[in-house]
Amino acid sequence: MIAPGDFKKNSDVVIDWIDHYLNHITEFPVKSQVMPGEVYRKIPERPPRDPESLERIMKDLHEVILPGITHWQHPNFHAYFPANNSVESIFAEFVTSAIGAQCMIWDTSPAAAELEERMMEWLRDAIHLPPGFDGVIQDSASSATLVALITAREVATGFRSNEEGVPGNLRVYCSGETHSSIEKGVGVCGIGKKNLVKVGVDEQLRMDPRLLEEQVMADIHKGFQPCAAVGTIGTTGTLAVDPIDAIGEICKKYHMWFHVDAAYAGTALLLPEYRWMIEGIEKVDSFVFNPHKWMFTNFDCSVYYVKNADLLISAFEVLPEYLKTKSRGSVNDYRDWGVPLGRRFRALKLWFVLRGFGISGIEERLRTHIGLNRYFSDEIRKIPGIILAMEPFLNFTIFRLHPSGVKDQELLNRLNEKLLEEINGRGKLFLTHTKIRGAYSLRMVIGQTYVEQRHIDLAINEISSAAENLAI
Amino acid sequence: MIAPGDFKKNSDVVIDWIDHYLNHITEFPVKSQVMPGEVYRKIPERPPRDPESLERIMKDLHEVILPGITHWQHPNFHAYFPANNSVESIFAEFVTSAIGAQCMIWDTSPAAAELEERMMEWLRDAIHLPPGFDGVIQDSASSATLVALITAREVATGFRSNEEGVPGNLRVYCSGETHSSIEKGVGVCGIGKKNLVKVGVDEQLRMDPRLLEEQVMADIHKGFQPCAAVGTIGTTGTLAVDPIDAIGEICKKYHMWFHVDAAYAGTALLLPEYRWMIEGIEKVDSFVFNPHKWMFTNFDCSVYYVKNADLLISAFEVLPEYLKTKSRGSVNDYRDWGVPLGRRFRALKLWFVLRGFGISGIEERLRTHIGLNRYFSDEIRKIPGIILAMEPFLNFTIFRLHPSGVKDQELLNRLNEKLLEEINGRGKLFLTHTKIRGAYSLRMVIGQTYVEQRHIDLAINEISSAAENLAI
Repeated sequence: MIAPGDFKKNSDVVIDWIDHYLNHITEFPVKSQVMPGEVYRKIPERPPRDPESLERIMKDLHEVILPGITHWQHPNFHAYFPANNSVESIFAEFVTSAIGAQCMIWDTSPAAAELEERMMEWLRDAIHLPPGFDGVIQDSASSATLVALITAREVATGFRSNEEGVPGNLRVYCSGETHSSIEKGVGVCGIGKKNLVKVGVDEQLRMDPRLLEEQVMADIHKGFQPCAAVGTIGTTGTLAVDPIDAIGEICKKYHMWFHVDAAYAGTALLLPEYRWMIEGIEKVDSFVFNPHKWMFTNFDCSVYYVKNADLLISAFEVLPEYLKTKSRGSVNDYRDWGVPLGRRFRALKLWFVLRGFGISGIEERLRTHIGLNRYFSDEIRKIPGIILAMEPFLNFTIFRLHPSGVKDQELLNRLNEKLLEEINGRGKLFLTHTKIRGAYSLRMVIGQTYVEQRHIDLAINEISSAAENLAI
Repeated sequence: MIAPGDFKKNSDVVIDWIDHYLNHITEFPVKSQVMPGEVYRKIPERPPRDPESLERIMKDLHEVILPGITHWQHPNFHAYFPANNSVESIFAEFVTSAIGAQCMIWDTSPAAAELEERMMEWLRDAIHLPPGFDGVIQDSASSATLVALITAREVATGFRSNEEGVPGNLRVYCSGETHSSIEKGVGVCGIGKKNLVKVGVDEQLRMDPRLLEEQVMADIHKGFQPCAAVGTIGTTGTLAVDPIDAIGEICKKYHMWFHVDAAYAGTALLLPEYRWMIEGIEKVDSFVFNPHKWMFTNFDCSVYYVKNADLLISAFEVLPEYLKTKSRGSVNDYRDWGVPLGRRFRALKLWFVLRGFGISGIEERLRTHIGLNRYFSDEIRKIPGIILAMEPFLNFTIFRLHPSGVKDQELLNRLNEKLLEEINGRGKLFLTHTKIRGAYSLRMVIGQTYVEQRHIDLAINEISSAAENLAI
């Protein structure tokens, strides 16, 4: 056991390791190249009986753990959506871990509750949500969406499902492009996956509001009760933006909860030129976006906004004797705003990032990423055989290999699957895929905090040479 | 924005602040003395347009945030249950934040998945759970319990409630002493709070298995379907230990899922002398304990064990195209083991703590805490007017002021409420309360990592002088 008095002396080895990691990250393969079981087998079967030195643990960190890490902060990590961080956010996490406060209620750390309240206001205003929205930090958009679905369920049943069970006739609507967390959430909260209706999309893979209304009307006719619709600003597959205003109109008309999942693209709302994405926001009941994706704030930090916080609290509040306090009612006890009772002090990293970058600094980074994507998409379409699968948007390009003359979709899919394997296997980049109307396509996201043009040039070269190899 | 190249240079101010905090923590009032709104008002209404320096942020951390912090790591924090940490665990969090990996599936960081698998085995064996149990890290026991209830719901309905909604006739059983997260979870997962039956307890506030079986039989007779029972090892109010073997027997007989909440006291299972608490563990389906409470591991780190992981995965799995991988099926993708998709690299801090302390080091600390509690309870009962409300157990004592001759319970409750206010208002200690059969009682938990006898002596003096003041 290291005593607090020895903290500083011992911190050197840790800080040096981190310093080396942050500054030599491009020397590692982006995607870990280990085989299943390789790391597991290197870790002893049993914990040591006696203490081991920090030096030895740090050595094993480097030799055993690091080869098994897929480097999310590598500037050539272009997979999934990023979970980028920043030196500011890392420092905030240092402080959070040292303070070690458990922020379940105001009493257990007033500053954590009140900083969270302010940070939620800062962000709400920065992305131009209406002032009536109240916010709370959740661990992930999956959890935030679950919270939204449960609140919707309670509102639809007059708060009876919390007490008596969930009737089998509630219906939730989203598009087939909506994130899998909606399906998971509908199962978890007991509405039932059969009651999740996937509405058709238009050419751009955006939910078609006309089809939504038709479906809602047909369901009412059959005795179902429309409960909620989920719209997405920036779908996971292709970054499609559902028409918020039109969907909101239908939700109002049929008394449905309207939840908007802007987990990834929500950060772009900091830029005035993307605010068209939330036109109709006044018709929205709840809204989630993840600063831990594209806003330089360490995972986990998902921000959930709700127009009527009383409904949220009514759906989640329980009050045992040991949590009764004098301040109750005059402050925010965020434990009542979601599933977990215990909460980390996550507002601190938002404060560090928003102040350390300034709004102008965040805007600058976002525009750099968007500019790099424009550059990337212009270059990539020049590679023989490669086509863009959709119009590039924000910092996101989706493309595939489609050699002229090849028509068989299965063959094309296998070809693109191979292309992705080839690219990722070299360890210089990491990309992931999706299918667009059955067509296997490669997703390229440019959202790493410190990414520069030379990293994009490297990506273009790698993709180009991998494509060339396959053509032989 | 601080560039990675400037990480080390800038880390000094952060490390120095943390070093000072850890080594001067006893100079701060344990429980923050700020008034509601005090911190909030000191934070500007808007984020800065331009970047601010790290020095300025750290200065505000000290001047604005710190006075609003309730110091969970203060050796005289004896409230709630602790969420203790350690220098080892803090260092691990440093590394985790710098790597910034999002560990949703094996592919996104093989080492995180495989270290988690090993750490779950290390801990399972260390607390003597049977080898058939598989473990996963959750953020909190609330989330773990929700996961257990959903799995139970699915098993009871043949996995139909995931699809079709939750019938109103499922019943869940616990005692009135069970943690509030059960009630919350039953509401969240749609079983309904009316279907949570609180079974009576014995003199020691342990669930009475005879009453449980009577209730189950009566419910079946009325057409209800028993779904799950929740037993507790170390209740929040008084640290009562439910009879696991007898409850397990009934669960087997009536085909109910048996979940055990050992969130706090589970750590004591590292000591052979407390293993009687899990007699009958082979009849248990799922089990949660929180290394983030009493095992020197930073919040959040809750460990959830399940006997049949296939049932858990079946209840939570969804598989969209963009998460399909080559390794699927041959590795653990922990996103399917709970609600959130995104996951932090939390196994790392368990590895740092278990190696840095060694099992012997953890045992030594636990026994020190238990010894200090024995000392505390012996001394506190000598203070005139103070009685022990229950027999002290582990590192936990519950007591109240009961001047001889005073019989009126309401008067006594007001007196003890005042005693608690007096103690906490001085800022030297922080205690919380519960009610035992209506009697307001003060809880004293001795679980801070670095607590020593002098801190307990201070606590005894403070309580004694506060009690004396009230007697005047």
